[in-house]
Amino acid sequence: MATAPSVSYSITVRLEVPAGGSAVSQLTSAVEASGGSVTGLDVTASGHERLQIDVTIAATSTAHSEEIVEKLRGVEGVTIGKVSDRTFLMHLGGKIEMASKHPIRNRDDLSMIYTPGVARVCTQIAENPEDARRLTIKRNSVAVVTDGSAVLGLGNIGPKAALPVMEGKAALFKRFAGIDAWPICLDTQDTDAIVEICKAIAPGFAGINLEDISAPRCFEIEARLREALDIPVFHDDQHGTAIVVLAALTNALRVVGKRIEDVKVVMSGAGAAGTAILKLLIDAGVKNAVVADIQGVVHCDRTDLVDADPKSALRWIADNTNPEGATGTLKDAVRGADVFIGVSAPNVLDGDDVASMAEGAIVFALANPDPEVEPSVARQTAAVVATGRSDFPNQINNVLVFPGVFRGLLDAHSRTVNSDMMIAAARAIADVVGEDELNRNYIIPSVFNDKVAPAVAGAVRDAAKAAGVTENPTIPA
Amino acid sequence: MATAPSVSYSITVRLEVPAGGSAVSQLTSAVEASGGSVTGLDVTASGHERLQIDVTIAATSTAHSEEIVEKLRGVEGVTIGKVSDRTFLMHLGGKIEMASKHPIRNRDDLSMIYTPGVARVCTQIAENPEDARRLTIKRNSVAVVTDGSAVLGLGNIGPKAALPVMEGKAALFKRFAGIDAWPICLDTQDTDAIVEICKAIAPGFAGINLEDISAPRCFEIEARLREALDIPVFHDDQHGTAIVVLAALTNALRVVGKRIEDVKVVMSGAGAAGTAILKLLIDAGVKNAVVADIQGVVHCDRTDLVDADPKSALRWIADNTNPEGATGTLKDAVRGADVFIGVSAPNVLDGDDVASMAEGAIVFALANPDPEVEPSVARQTAAVVATGRSDFPNQINNVLVFPGVFRGLLDAHSRTVNSDMMIAAARAIADVVGEDELNRNYIIPSVFNDKVAPAVAGAVRDAAKAAGVTENPTIPA
Repeated sequence: MATAPSVSYSITVRLEVPAGGSAVSQLTSAVEASGGSVTGLDVTASGHERLQIDVTIAATSTAHSEEIVEKLRGVEGVTIGKVSDRTFLMHLGGKIEMASKHPIRNRDDLSMIYTPGVARVCTQIAENPEDARRLTIKRNSVAVVTDGSAVLGLGNIGPKAALPVMEGKAALFKRFAGIDAWPICLDTQDTDAIVEICKAIAPGFAGINLEDISAPRCFEIEARLREALDIPVFHDDQHGTAIVVLAALTNALRVVGKRIEDVKVVMSGAGAAGTAILKLLIDAGVKNAVVADIQGVVHCDRTDLVDADPKSALRWIADNTNPEGATGTLKDAVRGADVFIGVSAPNVLDGDDVASMAEGAIVFALANPDPEVEPSVARQTAAVVATGRSDFPNQINNVLVFPGVFRGLLDAHSRTVNSDMMIAAARAIADVVGEDELNRNYIIPSVFNDKVAPAVAGAVRDAAKAAGVTENPTIPA
Repeated sequence: MATAPSVSYSITVRLEVPAGGSAVSQLTSAVEASGGSVTGLDVTASGHERLQIDVTIAATSTAHSEEIVEKLRGVEGVTIGKVSDRTFLMHLGGKIEMASKHPIRNRDDLSMIYTPGVARVCTQIAENPEDARRLTIKRNSVAVVTDGSAVLGLGNIGPKAALPVMEGKAALFKRFAGIDAWPICLDTQDTDAIVEICKAIAPGFAGINLEDISAPRCFEIEARLREALDIPVFHDDQHGTAIVVLAALTNALRVVGKRIEDVKVVMSGAGAAGTAILKLLIDAGVKNAVVADIQGVVHCDRTDLVDADPKSALRWIADNTNPEGATGTLKDAVRGADVFIGVSAPNVLDGDDVASMAEGAIVFALANPDPEVEPSVARQTAAVVATGRSDFPNQINNVLVFPGVFRGLLDAHSRTVNSDMMIAAARAIADVVGEDELNRNYIIPSVFNDKVAPAVAGAVRDAAKAAGVTENPTIPA
């Protein structure tokens, strides 16, 4: 599948060209002929003889951007100067910072913000610990915790290399929900150690967002922390994905006119995201789900499952899915299915497989960057197709989820997060798409739709209140 | 000792008075007669009959501010409305926040700050871990870590109640040195656990500032972390205090014309700060130091020391001080001494004790808020007197130290912090006071002197470079 030029592979090339003639148009032609896209052109210095120009170009890969620079070098009269990578420039020195809310101009400010005035505030909290939610950053802060073991599609790259993702996440928390998040990148991948560390740092935060921690450790870490802590713990790779998938499925089913209780859902992938999606779909009403992993359809008699740990995620799947006792391959399973959800690997299905699904088929092919089935092929027979990519309609992106979910949890002073709150979040996202807007190419709102986060926050806050796990006496009824 | 009204006990009282007559002057008279100080008076609404006024008043304590409000209530025609505590108002919702350095306006921004663009930056750091100092917040971030066991003079109030101090510290790091610090308040006081946690969170930070951790655990925690980590670990209560004391002593000795090698220094207090001050003074040249704690002068034959742990701080003091083998009480020890440094308890010395010191005596009475000896009494015979308080000349305040020290360490990419760097920091602070400015009432610059932090940072950076523990190839020679 050809990829379109993207600003995530964007470079700015400083170059000089002769002041007269057609050098500038030759430049843009050269970029376009190479498959790049000129997104900006600024003359930064002009003389009688020469122009200095900054040309900003979107490419499809690092190799592609290098190829474009070589093409520019070949244009007659052009001298190439510094080539800057825009994405790297944005990362210089980090993407986030700490800011003081109050100026510290003089001794009076100092004596209130710090000693001696601060002592009275400390004493107040020592006597009434719940006042930490009123008088400190605990009111609005989330720890973004990773061990760097499963970062994006890059795998186990460690805590330092994970930092740019965690900073980005913190920036998104602020942008979409006004939350103050700080990255905590851990130099350990030991389950017990991670649990102990998260427990220990909890006093300064109102929530913990676990991020990019590999399965199966992520399940145990989350479960133990939820048991131990009085603040919500949310593994975004699991539940953020599950919530946005349920939101998209809710609207896709509206498009094809089916009910969630009636459909057969086939899933490819039984990792952290797949397991969380499956559990949330079942909680939301799905009765007939079949899961396939790399060894085929999961069922109780599969040789690797007969003696599996009864607490393992795969064992749970075997016990709670596949009511018809199907065996065989993924391709066997999708025949006649209403919904396919892939969180696995590229190209596990082809057009014939999608064509074998039931009338009004729904295909969510979420492997990134290369989906389980080529979307343009799937669209030939499926009624609704969604991917994780931004260059196709219906992008399934958990940026729609985590800011609003935590906003709701923090506003409620919630002690935990549960399935009802997640289902409420999914419904809120789905309902942002109006009846008159809904169609096969628009089942999920854009991440920049500013109705999403407040809608999700309100739904989660109300669900937390209904669950009786909030500590904020000021939530309106 | 009478305390002056302070903004750290400042309230704003909203009240109404009759529009005509002398009610306003009666208000200010009532405040002054009660020992308070009117620092602001704003008419917030005015009518023919009544004025609404916000009066801001500095008091000396919470009880005093309540007393003043009662006096105001007694003024004829006055109606008292809402009384706000300015210090608490500044703490509502916390004093610091996370900020994104870049706007996230559209999908292009998102694709560079977050996925998919961020993946290239992660890959770069995975391949070259030292690039974390270039492409992430690690370049400029410090963890402010506490277990809440020794917060200000309040003692073991726990991690939540410590948070306002840590937020204030973070705000000061930014204000004075542009550093991004974040509070990490730990729900454990176990030495091993604190060491493991600090080691684990280190990848995301360029330094660790330990804060308000009680002795003797603070010694072991710091020593083990310095051994284990490749970023500097600095317990501010120890070394921040030691550095500013050495700075003040350097200038006090200039005032009285004595050399540090020649003076006899008597210290009261052998806790974390006392021990660190002592060690730094010895490293800086002091040959004759005597330390007293609550049991009197520390010497090798003292019954509690004969069998003491050879690695204990007190044992170290016994082995490295008191060359004349003095015994007895603190009062015995100060007789004939050149310098007294108190980091202990109020009123352990009186005027006669100070008068018994050598000619040109230097008295640093740093117990807060009530010093070891009443400063006005000490000044009758001592040549130079300093305290920890802001309402006397010569305030010894480690706000002068930690921002600049960390700025220097971060700029150098220093792997550690050592005694030479600390001595360099102290000299830099002392040298900010010019020869023509130096006198008994001005031995140390104000915390708002904007020459201090850059001078300290430069001195520490150069000392780190000289020590060969820096990793920044771009430091100028």
